[in-house]
Amino acid sequence: MRKTPYQQLMAFQHDTEALAQVAGRLGWDQETMMPEGAARQRSEELAAMEAVLHARRTDARIGEWLAAIDDGKLDAVGQANMRHIRRGFRRNSLVPADLAKALARLTSLSQRLWAQARAAEDFASFAPTLAEIVSLKREEAAALAEGGDLYDALLDDYEPGARAADLQAMFSALRPRLVTLREKALNARHQPVALEMEFSEATQMLLARDLARSFGYDFKRGRLDKAVHPFSSGSGTDVRITTRTNLHDPFNCIYSTIHETGHACYEQGINPDFALTPLGQGVSMGVHESQSRIYENQLGRGRAFCGYLYGEMTSAFGDIGLPDSEAFYETVNRVVPGYIRTEADEVQYNLHIMLRFDLERAMIEGKLEVSALEEAWNSRFEADFGLAVDKPSNGVLQDVHWAVGLFGYFPTYSLGNVYAGCLNKAMRAALPELDAELAAGNTGPATGWLRENVQQYGGLYTPQDVITKACGAAPTEAPLLDYLEAKFSDIYRL
Amino acid sequence: MRKTPYQQLMAFQHDTEALAQVAGRLGWDQETMMPEGAARQRSEELAAMEAVLHARRTDARIGEWLAAIDDGKLDAVGQANMRHIRRGFRRNSLVPADLAKALARLTSLSQRLWAQARAAEDFASFAPTLAEIVSLKREEAAALAEGGDLYDALLDDYEPGARAADLQAMFSALRPRLVTLREKALNARHQPVALEMEFSEATQMLLARDLARSFGYDFKRGRLDKAVHPFSSGSGTDVRITTRTNLHDPFNCIYSTIHETGHACYEQGINPDFALTPLGQGVSMGVHESQSRIYENQLGRGRAFCGYLYGEMTSAFGDIGLPDSEAFYETVNRVVPGYIRTEADEVQYNLHIMLRFDLERAMIEGKLEVSALEEAWNSRFEADFGLAVDKPSNGVLQDVHWAVGLFGYFPTYSLGNVYAGCLNKAMRAALPELDAELAAGNTGPATGWLRENVQQYGGLYTPQDVITKACGAAPTEAPLLDYLEAKFSDIYRL
Repeated sequence: MRKTPYQQLMAFQHDTEALAQVAGRLGWDQETMMPEGAARQRSEELAAMEAVLHARRTDARIGEWLAAIDDGKLDAVGQANMRHIRRGFRRNSLVPADLAKALARLTSLSQRLWAQARAAEDFASFAPTLAEIVSLKREEAAALAEGGDLYDALLDDYEPGARAADLQAMFSALRPRLVTLREKALNARHQPVALEMEFSEATQMLLARDLARSFGYDFKRGRLDKAVHPFSSGSGTDVRITTRTNLHDPFNCIYSTIHETGHACYEQGINPDFALTPLGQGVSMGVHESQSRIYENQLGRGRAFCGYLYGEMTSAFGDIGLPDSEAFYETVNRVVPGYIRTEADEVQYNLHIMLRFDLERAMIEGKLEVSALEEAWNSRFEADFGLAVDKPSNGVLQDVHWAVGLFGYFPTYSLGNVYAGCLNKAMRAALPELDAELAAGNTGPATGWLRENVQQYGGLYTPQDVITKACGAAPTEAPLLDYLEAKFSDIYRL
Repeated sequence: MRKTPYQQLMAFQHDTEALAQVAGRLGWDQETMMPEGAARQRSEELAAMEAVLHARRTDARIGEWLAAIDDGKLDAVGQANMRHIRRGFRRNSLVPADLAKALARLTSLSQRLWAQARAAEDFASFAPTLAEIVSLKREEAAALAEGGDLYDALLDDYEPGARAADLQAMFSALRPRLVTLREKALNARHQPVALEMEFSEATQMLLARDLARSFGYDFKRGRLDKAVHPFSSGSGTDVRITTRTNLHDPFNCIYSTIHETGHACYEQGINPDFALTPLGQGVSMGVHESQSRIYENQLGRGRAFCGYLYGEMTSAFGDIGLPDSEAFYETVNRVVPGYIRTEADEVQYNLHIMLRFDLERAMIEGKLEVSALEEAWNSRFEADFGLAVDKPSNGVLQDVHWAVGLFGYFPTYSLGNVYAGCLNKAMRAALPELDAELAAGNTGPATGWLRENVQQYGGLYTPQDVITKACGAAPTEAPLLDYLEAKFSDIYRL
């Protein structure tokens, strides 16, 4: 029997999805296993993969199949597949193959250059590469935008349907209440104490493994390794996470691990029928971050789970210099001045994002040259955080994103936080006994609710729709802000 | 300036080579890093990669470029490139894409089924899968042979230009003298002793790492991991090796590592100008095995290097129950009855190959059904080795090769041994002081001679030519047999 155009398209798409998984795994390998001397060859390999993927994603047969398919006659899954494929085909056809290949090759090489520059604390040595990346990304944005907003065109890659103007409004709503809360916490009389001892990095990794498992990560369909930058990669039955360790700060490892576990559980929780289809992965970075952030913060940094974690920590490390779980909870949630986004507390985190959002928008719009970026970062940072940046690894070189061409990605972190605030409110309403379970280290009811209401759907609904459906109302900033004010007023006795 | 057809072809080939490296790395990942539950998805990924590679290797544009290129006007490197590409294009065009894809998918899945069957000591559970593989390989052979010999058609994949009839003649020349030597050794009054203690597997891995390094393996362009089956994979600047450990038999780890180091050093020693071209990898499996076997045996199991290794072993493990380096040398080279090819001594190794060569030829020629394979293996093994096979993991399930579709591969091991015999004779003539260096653990002169005379050329010459050129004469069995008789007559005081 001859296949319908829809079946032919889906068979073609299946191989494209499989090849995208391969490319993703190369990226994982590059960060975890690849020998140092293989960097240049790897960039050639990734560029060749990118060329293959681009050719498939712009294959003329897709256009023919799309023309022959009447979406209205498909079921809901078929219609969702078509929504993704039509959107992707249009976007991919707009980007010239040579540009896609040049970006892949450059961003594969540039990651190592960024790491070297960061280690050498030398932004100037990386600036020409970054300038080249920005130039290519501006080209890509121009091709995608078709006369519209350049930044929106890039943003759409990570958060379909999102617009910079809406994000700007979101940040405007977040900023004043966050800044006020931060000032109150920093100036409060009661201050949580810091950890003062060393924590065996091998033991941190063992604990990380236990925590990932306890949050529902399935090691039969994934693995956990160390890398410079924690990340989650892959979909379907091969979803791998990385974390890092710091001798003096075990929370770096613990909360990076829980964060990446959230990402990975989203992928692992998707309906397996969607594997190697457009629905078989998280629907957007914002929704992805909602999962990683709710695992990390609303669950992992909550008082109840901290009670359990305190027991785990003391049994792993002995006396950690804190008298009880309440002191531990406060220490976990300390609000302190700091340079590093990934180590920022919940109150300040979104302020770090706002800085990046404004700077990257300016670069993409051509209003900020890379040669002026370090200075722009440092002055903005001092204005926003009251600290002079002491070195590039604490400033403009701290994040890998721009070095690998991710422009328009940062704001999805804040969007994820806002979504997490909404989901947390809905989840707490649905699960009144949740804290008792979390206090016993049982995350099952929470992760089960998230799997049921968010994760299983993969790409079936739009990002906005999946959150709205889960929460019973369209997302707003209020639940996140209310939650933060209540939590930190309590900790700081405001 | 417009590129010439040759330049266009080589640019296209460059990406194909890069993608082949990616597929190879997926294979490595599957054996070392992949989570267990990802097996089915991985087979889809590999099948999609194979489809891409097959499409590129049979792309109609190659035919057009080939028609437009006058090989006679190219330099020696260009002509060698054309020789490989013309040959490959012809072979690849003969195999239908669906068949190539079916083979890739099946052999990706079947490896795990083989491992399960082996662990369960149950050949019957694997037989249907193997029968399917043999059936597909027979189809492939028929497509490639164009009416010629089916087995030759497969053999040509691993050893271009080799023919089963010539290999049959080689085995006929090897067999009588090897059988005689084996009988003499087994019946000799003087017998080397076996190791009797346990050897920490972690320490074995440390020693393996040191040995790989001391044989010239460059860890900046590779890495060493544990796997079920030792192997080397990748070309250019990313050549990875695996090894395994056995608590009671450190030689398994040590000599597997040195063997794979030989393969890897071949790849790492190729002229870097050849990277991602048809010349940028070992020219055949036979020549590859000549390197791995000469590293492992003529160098690594020689009296001189064993003197050095004895010192390393005793400093790593303390007293290993052997009085001196001479006893150690004898123990390393013990000839004992055994089931396992990869653990066989130099005298018996080729007898293991002959068994496989005959059985796989019979399967490919349709004279032996997979359903009768286990019985055929067991009776042939008893006839050749005087031992009744006690379980499939010691018999028909011991090697992964057939399970991943490698038919025609086994005889290249013996070809490699024969080549190694010839190379060893030429190298010893050129480097009269070699043993003094090896006794001090310095493999540099030997590996330097091999790099200079074999490895650097990659695919520049035909397999026969590269050996002939290095040795000053066409290869024959005599040097290997002379070397073995001299070595084992000495050890066994015959």
